[in-house]
Amino acid sequence: MPELRQNLATREWVIISSERARRPNAYIEASDRILTHERPEHDAHCPFCLGNEELDLEVCRYPEGSQGWDTRVVRNKYPALAEAGTLVRNFNGVERYITGIGYHEVLVEHTLHNATLALMTDEEIRAVVDMYLRRGREISDDPRVEHLVFFKNHGERAGASLVHPHSQIIGLPIVPGDIRHRIEESRRFFDDTGQCVFCTMLADELSRGERLIALNDHFAAFVLYASSSPFHIWILPRTHRASFMHIDEDSLIHLAPLLRDVLFRLYTHLNDPDYNLILRSTPTKEPENGYFHWYIAIVPRLSRSAGFELGSGMWINPTIPEECAAFLRDGAVAL
Amino acid sequence: MPELRQNLATREWVIISSERARRPNAYIEASDRILTHERPEHDAHCPFCLGNEELDLEVCRYPEGSQGWDTRVVRNKYPALAEAGTLVRNFNGVERYITGIGYHEVLVEHTLHNATLALMTDEEIRAVVDMYLRRGREISDDPRVEHLVFFKNHGERAGASLVHPHSQIIGLPIVPGDIRHRIEESRRFFDDTGQCVFCTMLADELSRGERLIALNDHFAAFVLYASSSPFHIWILPRTHRASFMHIDEDSLIHLAPLLRDVLFRLYTHLNDPDYNLILRSTPTKEPENGYFHWYIAIVPRLSRSAGFELGSGMWINPTIPEECAAFLRDGAVAL
Repeated sequence: MPELRQNLATREWVIISSERARRPNAYIEASDRILTHERPEHDAHCPFCLGNEELDLEVCRYPEGSQGWDTRVVRNKYPALAEAGTLVRNFNGVERYITGIGYHEVLVEHTLHNATLALMTDEEIRAVVDMYLRRGREISDDPRVEHLVFFKNHGERAGASLVHPHSQIIGLPIVPGDIRHRIEESRRFFDDTGQCVFCTMLADELSRGERLIALNDHFAAFVLYASSSPFHIWILPRTHRASFMHIDEDSLIHLAPLLRDVLFRLYTHLNDPDYNLILRSTPTKEPENGYFHWYIAIVPRLSRSAGFELGSGMWINPTIPEECAAFLRDGAVAL
Repeated sequence: MPELRQNLATREWVIISSERARRPNAYIEASDRILTHERPEHDAHCPFCLGNEELDLEVCRYPEGSQGWDTRVVRNKYPALAEAGTLVRNFNGVERYITGIGYHEVLVEHTLHNATLALMTDEEIRAVVDMYLRRGREISDDPRVEHLVFFKNHGERAGASLVHPHSQIIGLPIVPGDIRHRIEESRRFFDDTGQCVFCTMLADELSRGERLIALNDHFAAFVLYASSSPFHIWILPRTHRASFMHIDEDSLIHLAPLLRDVLFRLYTHLNDPDYNLILRSTPTKEPENGYFHWYIAIVPRLSRSAGFELGSGMWINPTIPEECAAFLRDGAVAL
């Protein structure tokens, strides 16, 4: 019997379709696939490779002021939003628009063309996280920015057009409807119970254990009970905090190893699947609060959305989340 | 300067990204592509082809009781929801689920394997629409069903796994959050103005004209002001009606030619692009009302969603909707 499962935080339902159930190992990518780390270390045509630094407008680099670099942030060459300009609101009948003011930056995660987070060292991942944090804090200071979206597209099916490891940061002049909805739901849960809904979900996952895939003192990673797609993972800080921008040093130290652990499991168990990584944090003008909780979502691109998803906003997930978790936790690597 | 445009009905914002603007003709599919109608008329391995009728469980056919058929409805072989069973709600801590009761049917639109709505006659399309209506009304009578999703996946990028022309109907035991949100927004607009927001948008489109692509006495098709992707089209009945299931005969007569006109333009101007078609109607238990308005959305799959869309629920559209409309309305076919 299929199930409709509800995500307690978003109140969205997802169909877990047992009739069409595919076992986790059905998602192992073909073994003749070129894995990310098997590509060349340097590509003279890649704008993010060493030697091509002048192709993009640099925002900052780490280490600062040095000749070389470990990570860099550059302006997106085709930005979705413009940094310069005034925020103008125009309401003219049904035509309502705001000038597209905001930020659209690319974080180059490594000098090597064929590096990938899953195989980097903790120190290298830490340098990436530090850069997310640095630019997140700086962009938040711009009063025109209402919300930040941190994301990474790994692989073509996840929307990546360049192989060189990179993330993107977009600073928006509005809070998107979807985020507003999540904030409202978490606020309602807080009103009803005095608890953060994410803390509640996390406590439940820790006590059940069956969907957990990795854990340390500061973070927990689990396959979502109401996963919208196969291997849909959340990484939650174990201490309540609404804004990633307020993360403390102790948590920062523990984030990189956990993120590496989760991505390494995906890389080895599923043979380098395409994925999106998203870091969600409270809107910039609702900074620290009791109801929202920052987290990282990882969504491997192993199934496709179609008319049903577009028409309903719901997802059909043909795998059992508990089986996906067990596979990532214990599963023998069948390559 | 990019723009953030708001869809008045959903209140969702979309980024119209002029910096990365692609002209409509950039989306013409490659001319060496195998067009749908160039495939064989019959495929012995296709479950929907003549002669393979026993492969699926038939729900009904048209004409009824005849040896042959023009259109058929069958149960989906891998249904996302189960028809038999009792609706049970289980709330156990964070684990909230409902048994997956509902309908998942496939509407075979034509006997020919290589037929396609864009090239069918008005009568053939009318037979498809009649079948949507018949099953829509019948499934609505099941008190366990709260909402119907009618959709079509044309082409692989739109999620179609079979070439033979078909649509799908899913009857859900809940109203999905996304639909509930749309209903709430339209009700709020009605509370504020006494008008249906869709009627308001339609009146505006008719008076402006620049985004219109096809029109008759009963329907209007236009590219959405806040299109979430290139060539995102709405077909709206010109008379207010919340439920497709209450459509009158006069409107039915005029729907097929307009739908054909729009799909034919996409087929010829863009070289048979993959697309999703969605028919949205009011939830079954909120039948006729003043605030919602049934309509058809057509979403060609010409761009890809990535981490930003997943992370924000917003879309970046790299084309200008007015240019897409002009291209479909007047554009020379550059094949």
